[in-house]
Amino acid sequence: MKILEDVCTNMEKIRRVHPLVHNITNYVVMNFTANVLLALGASPVMAHAREEVEEMVGLANALVVNIGTLSTTWIESMVAAVRAAKGRSIPIVLDPVGAGATRFRTQTALRLLEEARPAVLRGNGSEILALAGGKANTKGVDSATGSGEARQAAIALAKSYGIVVAVTGAEDFVTDGAKTAVISNGHELMSRVTGTGCGASAVTGAFCAVEEDAFAAATGALATFGIAGEIAARGGPGPGSFQINLLDRLYALESQTIEELMRIILL
Amino acid sequence: MKILEDVCTNMEKIRRVHPLVHNITNYVVMNFTANVLLALGASPVMAHAREEVEEMVGLANALVVNIGTLSTTWIESMVAAVRAAKGRSIPIVLDPVGAGATRFRTQTALRLLEEARPAVLRGNGSEILALAGGKANTKGVDSATGSGEARQAAIALAKSYGIVVAVTGAEDFVTDGAKTAVISNGHELMSRVTGTGCGASAVTGAFCAVEEDAFAAATGALATFGIAGEIAARGGPGPGSFQINLLDRLYALESQTIEELMRIILL
Amino acid sequence: MKILEDVCTNMEKIRRVHPLVHNITNYVVMNFTANVLLALGASPVMAHAREEVEEMVGLANALVVNIGTLSTTWIESMVAAVRAAKGRSIPIVLDPVGAGATRFRTQTALRLLEEARPAVLRGNGSEILALAGGKANTKGVDSATGSGEARQAAIALAKSYGIVVAVTGAEDFVTDGAKTAVISNGHELMSRVTGTGCGASAVTGAFCAVEEDAFAAATGALATFGIAGEIAARGGPGPGSFQINLLDRLYALESQTIEELMRIILL
Repeated sequence: MKILEDVCTNMEKIRRVHPLVHNITNYVVMNFTANVLLALGASPVMAHAREEVEEMVGLANALVVNIGTLSTTWIESMVAAVRAAKGRSIPIVLDPVGAGATRFRTQTALRLLEEARPAVLRGNGSEILALAGGKANTKGVDSATGSGEARQAAIALAKSYGIVVAVTGAEDFVTDGAKTAVISNGHELMSRVTGTGCGASAVTGAFCAVEEDAFAAATGALATFGIAGEIAARGGPGPGSFQINLLDRLYALESQTIEELMRIILL
Repeated sequence: MKILEDVCTNMEKIRRVHPLVHNITNYVVMNFTANVLLALGASPVMAHAREEVEEMVGLANALVVNIGTLSTTWIESMVAAVRAAKGRSIPIVLDPVGAGATRFRTQTALRLLEEARPAVLRGNGSEILALAGGKANTKGVDSATGSGEARQAAIALAKSYGIVVAVTGAEDFVTDGAKTAVISNGHELMSRVTGTGCGASAVTGAFCAVEEDAFAAATGALATFGIAGEIAARGGPGPGSFQINLLDRLYALESQTIEELMRIILL
Repeated sequence: MKILEDVCTNMEKIRRVHPLVHNITNYVVMNFTANVLLALGASPVMAHAREEVEEMVGLANALVVNIGTLSTTWIESMVAAVRAAKGRSIPIVLDPVGAGATRFRTQTALRLLEEARPAVLRGNGSEILALAGGKANTKGVDSATGSGEARQAAIALAKSYGIVVAVTGAEDFVTDGAKTAVISNGHELMSRVTGTGCGASAVTGAFCAVEEDAFAAATGALATFGIAGEIAARGGPGPGSFQINLLDRLYALESQTIEELMRIILL
C-alpha cells in the first residue's frame, strides 16, 4: 500500500536528516513537545522573541504555531514567523488550542489561519467546528463536539482555505477537501496526558518537513503517533508511565510495527 | 466517618463530572499541574492573557492562582480573573509561592488574598507565616519554618479573612479558624519533586469545584494527594520515578485504598 | 586523586547544605532543571521579574542564567540579576543556548558574558565557537561543530574573559585557559532528551555554590551529571525512561560509584 510505504519512508527520513522544527507553542507543553520531536528523530527549537523569530524560521524545515497559552506579544511573533515561513515556502502547522472557548482564541486562530494558510491545521472537534463558524461545544481546551459535525467542518475549512485539516479524537480524520483518511490508531490514555494533541501537531510538523504532500504527511504523522501511543499503553498502569512509554516507543518504533498496527481507511 | 465518605464521594464526583479547573500558575509546574488534574479526572485549562481570563473563568468550575514565576502583566490578569470568579461565585484557591522570600511576592500575595478572599489559601509554613505578618524563615520557595508557628499563623489568617487556610509539610494542617484537621499522609519524596505543593493546590481546586464546604474540600484534597504520594513512593527508587508513579496512583486510586490509608485527625 | 575527592566532597556538601540556586532559564526546561537540582540535593528557585530578581539573588548561593527562550524583558532581568550577583560575589553560570543561531542570541550572550564574567560559561561546541567570533555551524540549538575547533575557542574565551569555559558534547571539555580537563562520562541518550545541557549548567551552578575553584566545580559537576546519565542509560529502552532514570540516579549516586566510573583526563 502506497501510504504505508510513505509513512515508513518519511519516518526513516526524519531519523536520517533530523529536520529542524521551529515551535512557537504554549508553556504547558514545551518540554513534552521538544521531547516528542527528539524521540522521533527531529531537532526541535523553541523561539518566540519578535527580534529573532524570522531569522530562526529561516533555519527551520517546518514551523509549528500553537496558541495554547496566548498573549498579545506572542501573537505578533506568531504572525511574523508565519509570514517569514510563507516567504520561504517552509511548511506551517497550526494548532488552534482552545478556539471556541474564548473570543480571543477564536479570533487569533482565524487570523493566523488566514495569514498562514498552513500546510496542516490540526485541532480537536470543538476547535475545528469553532473555526468553521459552527457553535462549538467546548470545555476549556477539551472537545465536546460530535465527530460527524467536526468532519463536515474540516472539509469546509479545507476547501475554503485550500489546506489540509486534521481532526484528532477517538478516531483521527484528515482531509484536503477532496480526499479523506480515517485513522483508528491511538489509545484513550492519550486524553489523560496533557500535550498529546500538541505533540501530534509537532509530529505533523516533522513529517511536513520531509514530505511535500501535506495530506500524506498529516496522515502518516497521526498514524505514527497513534501507534506509538497504542504500544505505550500496554506498558504501564496509568497516565504517568504512559507519557514516558510514549517517548520510548516513538524512539524505538520500527517499520514492521507500523505495518502491523496501522489502521487507515482512505475515502 | 463522615469525612471519609466525603473524600470518596468527592473523588468520584470529580471523575464523573470532570470539573474545569482554570489555572493561572507558574512556568515551572504548568505541565505537571495539568497532568495531576487529568490523572485525578478533572479538566485543566491554563490561560493568562488579560484579553481572555474573565471569559475563561466564566467557563470554569474553580480558579487556581499560583504566583510561582510572577511578573507584572500576569498580576493584572490574576486580579481580573479573581474578580471575575468572585462575581460568579466560582471557588478560588490561592497558592502564594515564595511569599516571604521577596517583597514583590509577599505584597502580591497579600493583594490577591485581599481581592480573592479565596475558598482556600494553601502554602508552606514560611509562606503562611509571611502572610500573617510573621518573620518567615524562608529559603527561596522552600519553607524553613517550624510547624507550630505556622499553624498559629494559619488560624489567624483564617479568622481574619474568613477563609480556609492549609499549611502543607511533613504533616498538613487545615483550618477555618475554628475547626482544624491534621493530615498525616504523604511522603518525604514529595519535597524532592518540584510542583508537588502546586499540585496539592490544583487538586484542592478540583475538590472545591465539586464540594461547597471548603474545609472538607481542602482536607479531602490533601489526604487524597498525600495517599497517592505514599503509594507512589513504594514504586520506585527516586524522585524521577516517584513523579511518574504519583500520576499513575492518582489515576488508579480507589475508595478502599483511601479508607485504609487516610490519617486525618480533626480537632 | 585530588579531583575525585573534591567531586565526592562537593556532592556531599550539596546534599548537606542544600544551596539555593537561582535560575533565570527557559520555559522548555524549567521543570526538568528544578527536578535535576532537587534530585542532586540543591534547592532551586526560578524568578525572573525585574521587581524581585536582585532581592532573590541576594538569598541565593549561585545564579544560573540561560537564554533558551529569550525575550527583551527577560534580558533586562538577567542583566540586573547578574549585576546583583557580581556585587555580592555570588558565582554565576552562563548558558548561551542557541548563540550563533540568531544575531539576537549571539549578541545577548556576549552582553551577558561581558557583564557577568561568569564563574563558568557552559555551552555546546557551536555556541562556544560563536561567542569566540568563529563561524558556528549550528542547527537551531544543537551543535554541529567539530570538537577541536570548539576547544580552541573555549581556551581563547577563557583567557580573554578570565573565566572557566565548559564545552559539552560526546566528551566534555573544561578549561580555565591554562589547565584543561576532558571528561568522558555521559551517554548518547542525553542528546535525545531536552534540557540535559541546561541541566548540566544547573548542576554546575550547584557545585559552584559549594566550591570556590570554578575549574574544579565545573569538572566535578559534568562528571557527576555524566555518570548519572551513564547509569540511567542502563535502565530503560529510550529517552522517556532515561529522563526519569537520570533523576533517580542523581538522587542515589554514591561516592563509590563516582570513584568507579569517573573518567577525567587532566592536561
